Amino acid sequence: MKSLIECIPNVSEGRREEVVARLAESAVKAAPGVLLLDRTSDADHNRSVFTYLGDGPSLLTGMSALVGAALEAIDLGTHRGAHPRIGAVDVVPFVPVRNATTADCVALAKQLGRHLAERYGLPVYLYEDAATAPDRQNLANIRKGEFEGLAAKMEDPAWKPDFGPASPHPKGGATVVGARAPLIAYNVNLATEDLAVADRIAKAIRHLSGGYRFVKAMGVKLEARGQVQVSINMTNPEKTPLHRVFETVKSEAERHGVAVVGSEIVGLVPAQALFSAASHFLRLEADPGPQVLENKLLDLAFASEAE
Amino acid sequence: MKSLIECIPNVSEGRREEVVARLAESAVKAAPGVLLLDRTSDADHNRSVFTYLGDGPSLLTGMSALVGAALEAIDLGTHRGAHPRIGAVDVVPFVPVRNATTADCVALAKQLGRHLAERYGLPVYLYEDAATAPDRQNLANIRKGEFEGLAAKMEDPAWKPDFGPASPHPKGGATVVGARAPLIAYNVNLATEDLAVADRIAKAIRHLSGGYRFVKAMGVKLEARGQVQVSINMTNPEKTPLHRVFETVKSEAERHGVAVVGSEIVGLVPAQALFSAASHFLRLEADPGPQVLENKLLDLAFASEAE
Repeated sequence: MKSLIECIPNVSEGRREEVVARLAESAVKAAPGVLLLDRTSDADHNRSVFTYLGDGPSLLTGMSALVGAALEAIDLGTHRGAHPRIGAVDVVPFVPVRNATTADCVALAKQLGRHLAERYGLPVYLYEDAATAPDRQNLANIRKGEFEGLAAKMEDPAWKPDFGPASPHPKGGATVVGARAPLIAYNVNLATEDLAVADRIAKAIRHLSGGYRFVKAMGVKLEARGQVQVSINMTNPEKTPLHRVFETVKSEAERHGVAVVGSEIVGLVPAQALFSAASHFLRLEADPGPQVLENKLLDLAFASEAE
Repeated sequence: MKSLIECIPNVSEGRREEVVARLAESAVKAAPGVLLLDRTSDADHNRSVFTYLGDGPSLLTGMSALVGAALEAIDLGTHRGAHPRIGAVDVVPFVPVRNATTADCVALAKQLGRHLAERYGLPVYLYEDAATAPDRQNLANIRKGEFEGLAAKMEDPAWKPDFGPASPHPKGGATVVGARAPLIAYNVNLATEDLAVADRIAKAIRHLSGGYRFVKAMGVKLEARGQVQVSINMTNPEKTPLHRVFETVKSEAERHGVAVVGSEIVGLVPAQALFSAASHFLRLEADPGPQVLENKLLDLAFASEAE
C-alpha cells in the first residue's frame, strides 16, 4: 500500500446541499486517486467538512480543483454562519495516516499554498506544523477578525500571507493550509439557548484560558435546534481524551443547572479514541486495542501489501 | 480475500505457560494457513482461550492438531480450576468473520466433530447453531456435572454424544463443538472475597434467572487476587450491550456495599461493541461506526481484494 495522507478541507458552505455535493466531488473528479471518506455539513455553522484520503500528488491536484470550484460557488461577502471563517475554502490540513510523516505533510502544505497563490491569486497562511512563525501555529490567531476584518489585518506586516497577495480574494478571502496530527472535532450540545453558558464552559476546558492542554473550544449558538453548543477541537486525543473533556463539560453544565443533550463527532475519528472512552467508563483493566478483531484484520491487510 | 472464519478453542490449562504456548502453536504448525490472533490464560480458571483466523480446511487441520496435543498434555483427572469444563479441549466454536455464513460454520463444526471422534475416540457434542436438539444449544446444559459427572451423564440416552463413544475419554473427557455469532467474554471484578455477592449479581443479569436476554453469567472466586468476579458471556452484544450490563453489575454491587474494581475482556472483541459503549457514555447523537477512520481503511483493504 502506498503512502496514505488524510486531507480535511473545511468549506464555508453548509446549507445548499447541491453546492456541497458538487464541491465534495470536484476533488475526486480531478484526481481519481483521491477518495472521499466522509462529508459532514452543519447549517448553523454554514460550513462543511470533507475528509479525503490519497497520496501527496493526488491530493494536490484534488485540492486545487476544490478551491477552484469553491471560488466560483461561494461569496464570503454574503456568507453568514455561526462558525468563524476567513476563506471560501477556510482551512486545509494534511494528516499522516500510513507510510507518511509529518514532514511529508508539511512539504505538501507548502506546495499547495504556493500553487493556490499562483493559480488563483489567493492569499495563503501556513499553520500548525507548517507555520512559519509561532503566532501562526494556532488557527484561531490567523482567523481572528474573520473575513470581514481581513483586509485591515493584512495591512499589518506581521500578518502578510505566506503566499499570494496581501489583500483578500474578493469572494474567497484567504485559505489556511497546514499539517497536523489527527484531531477530533467534537461538539457537546446543551439544553439551553443561553450562549453565555456555552462560552463559560468553553473557557473552562480550553488550554488558552486554563483548561486542558490539548483542547480548543468556543460556544456556538444552534438557531435551528434552539440550543447552544460547546464546539471543541481535541488536538491530541491520546493525551487529552474525549471522556475526560465530556465529563468536565457535563460537570460545568450541571453547575449552571443545564443538561447535556448529546454530543457529536464531526468528520472522522480514530478508533482508539473511542476505545479509550469505552475503556474508561467500563473500567477496563487493560487497553482493549490489541484485542479488537478489526485491528487484527487491518494489520493483516496492510502487512500482506507491504513492500 | 478468501473466506475468513474465527475459531476460539477453550483449553483446560491456564497455569503451565510452556504447555499453553506449545498448544497454541500446534494448530499453526499443522496448518500454516491458520493465524493465531490472540491467546489469554487465567490461572484461577486454569483455562486458556486461543483465537485463530483462517478458512475452513485450514482450521479443520489446525484444530485436529490442537486436540491431539491437548490429549497428550492435559489430564482432566488431576485438573482443578474455577471454571466449569468437561474436556481437555473444552469448547471449539466457529464464528463467521468475512465471506462466510453461519451455515458454513455449522458444516465445519460437524466435520470437525466427526473427525475428532474417528481419530481420537473422543466423544463430541454439537452446540449453539450446530446443536442437534434444543437442550444442547446452551453450553451450560451440556457442561452440567462437569468432567467428574460425565460418565454417569452419558449413560442417559438423552446425553449420548453426537459423535464418538458414550463414555468419556480417560484424560480428555469430551469436546463441545459448534457455530455461533461473535460473543464477548467479559468479566467484572469486585472488591470482596464473598463469592455469594458475585453469584447473586450473576443471577440478576443472566437470562436463565430473569436477567438480560443475551447474557450468561456466573460468580467465580479469584484466589490469586483475593476478589470475586462476575464472569459473563455476552452472546449478542448488539442487542444486549456491554455498557448496560456493566451498569447493572455496578448498581447491584453497590446494593451489597461492594465496589467494582475493574473489568476485563477475554480474547477478542468486535470494535463496534466498544464504539457502542463509548457512544452511550459520551451521549453521541449518531452511531460513530461510519465515522471511524479504521473502518474506512478496512473497507478499502477488503474491497480492493474482492473477486
